[in-house]
Amino acid sequence: MNYRIGIDFGGTGIKSGVIDAENRLIGKASLPTGVGRPYEEIVADIARTAELAATDAGLAISDFPCLGIGSPGCVNPRNGEMVFLGNLNWHNAPLGQSLSALLGIPVFVGNDANCAIAGEVIAGAARGCKHALMLTLGTGVGGGVVLDSKLYLGGDGMGTEFGHTPFLFGGEPCTCGARGCFEAYASVTALIRQTKAAMAAHPESLMHASLAEHGKVSGRTAFDCARKGDAAASSVVDTYIEYVACGIGGFINVFRPEIVLIGGGISNEGDFLIRPLNDKIKRYVFSHDIIGVPRIAAATLGNDAGIIGAAHLDQM
Amino acid sequence: MNYRIGIDFGGTGIKSGVIDAENRLIGKASLPTGVGRPYEEIVADIARTAELAATDAGLAISDFPCLGIGSPGCVNPRNGEMVFLGNLNWHNAPLGQSLSALLGIPVFVGNDANCAIAGEVIAGAARGCKHALMLTLGTGVGGGVVLDSKLYLGGDGMGTEFGHTPFLFGGEPCTCGARGCFEAYASVTALIRQTKAAMAAHPESLMHASLAEHGKVSGRTAFDCARKGDAAASSVVDTYIEYVACGIGGFINVFRPEIVLIGGGISNEGDFLIRPLNDKIKRYVFSHDIIGVPRIAAATLGNDAGIIGAAHLDQM
Repeated sequence: MNYRIGIDFGGTGIKSGVIDAENRLIGKASLPTGVGRPYEEIVADIARTAELAATDAGLAISDFPCLGIGSPGCVNPRNGEMVFLGNLNWHNAPLGQSLSALLGIPVFVGNDANCAIAGEVIAGAARGCKHALMLTLGTGVGGGVVLDSKLYLGGDGMGTEFGHTPFLFGGEPCTCGARGCFEAYASVTALIRQTKAAMAAHPESLMHASLAEHGKVSGRTAFDCARKGDAAASSVVDTYIEYVACGIGGFINVFRPEIVLIGGGISNEGDFLIRPLNDKIKRYVFSHDIIGVPRIAAATLGNDAGIIGAAHLDQM
Repeated sequence: MNYRIGIDFGGTGIKSGVIDAENRLIGKASLPTGVGRPYEEIVADIARTAELAATDAGLAISDFPCLGIGSPGCVNPRNGEMVFLGNLNWHNAPLGQSLSALLGIPVFVGNDANCAIAGEVIAGAARGCKHALMLTLGTGVGGGVVLDSKLYLGGDGMGTEFGHTPFLFGGEPCTCGARGCFEAYASVTALIRQTKAAMAAHPESLMHASLAEHGKVSGRTAFDCARKGDAAASSVVDTYIEYVACGIGGFINVFRPEIVLIGGGISNEGDFLIRPLNDKIKRYVFSHDIIGVPRIAAATLGNDAGIIGAAHLDQM
């Protein structure tokens, strides 16, 4: 038997999946996280989704050599502790130990962004790459790096916080308390802010009709209207992609990966995002005319990346 | 016998050194680089400094298992090629191979910034650290990282270009062709630009007397006058240190090293630089109140770091 089990744990839901030797999902289960409940209740439900996913695949937990779980927040992968998880108010929660006690198999805990890149390297858009970097553009900016086919976690296991690197000194306030972080320009939250500012300045823009139709401004508003030729929306998209390209350029100059993946909902914009990114990136890559420019691509596994990566944490 | 030999190769000089098992320099030699001469002549002189340093230590080249050389420019450590060295106009120069043919022992080639951090980790300010990061603040900004006691070089060996990461989007032009790079704010070249701007705005500043005395504005002008209490100079120094702290904060958030070293002439400013840096860094370190802040320190080996690091390239 060569099955693995992984969990994508988030602020809204707990998603467990069983994969076969070809990394196909052959069983799954999910439960709501239920923010606000005691730690023990949430951990019991995490264990339960694992058992349900195993059952869904016609297996039992004892059929797996170990289990992996990816979580947002500040994770210490060395000891399986959740150092800090804001929306659940967890501090130094021994998640790996608690789950292992409930399930009776070893449990590996990783950061969700690290699980996502692990999944993409194992079975997705970066398959076969030894050196890869991934940015997940969402509410914040998550990041992960694979160096020589292994996850790189930082000296104490809590590095690769790509969202919190300088981007525009003294600029927009960031959720971390500093100003001008990359996250404050490249997250979907930032894109929404940029979209709203353009809407205020351009009452003639199609984006207002989009808002009326959908009831809110989202990360898709500017992209949707830019596709229809709206000038103000096109300018928002162009500037946003320039920001993302500039940030990625710096990460390339440090890590020189073979590929850079874009994950998160925004990666659904496909070529409309990826093609200009690959064009704009050149000017930000040091000595690009001599040593070349890595390819930027969209992640392809979506939410499954986190489950597949988590299921392989013991090997990464 | 446990001797090693390393070379610090730069645009102005070639410095070779022999070290003993305690990393003490027991022989040295140097020759001018002589920019403008043919490749073969320069390589012959590099080999000659190695032979002279060996002789100075009472040894011969055949007494060494290998030789290491650190060079500026774009180095491919995997094959010993100088991919690009601007001031000598070298393109894909097979430096390692050429030197090995002349000397009859294996030659390892590394980036000068990488040799510097290797030296500091082996015998200097980061001795005993498994995870260290170093920035050399000079004409440009060089950088190196040691992860798990090994030099990290980037996926294709040409990474860790910390000077060319975003710092102020759309800001000052950088030597690399982009704008707003960290190097354009944190190099000594940038500090001199910042000093001159403050002098133009503050005719009352002591910095004008310093210029008259020394004949030029240097990286020391603002620091010297700030020590004497000059307000405009103090403001230049404070802002410059804020820039350096912000940049280092981002590198810490990605690498989480145990220590960050500052090298280059500016590290001679000692506590006047290092103490405010350690103070300012906190606000730029993600979750610093929970996971802590690595220490920033001055490099201690000066120019010898490059020779000692180069001499150990085969092990790093």
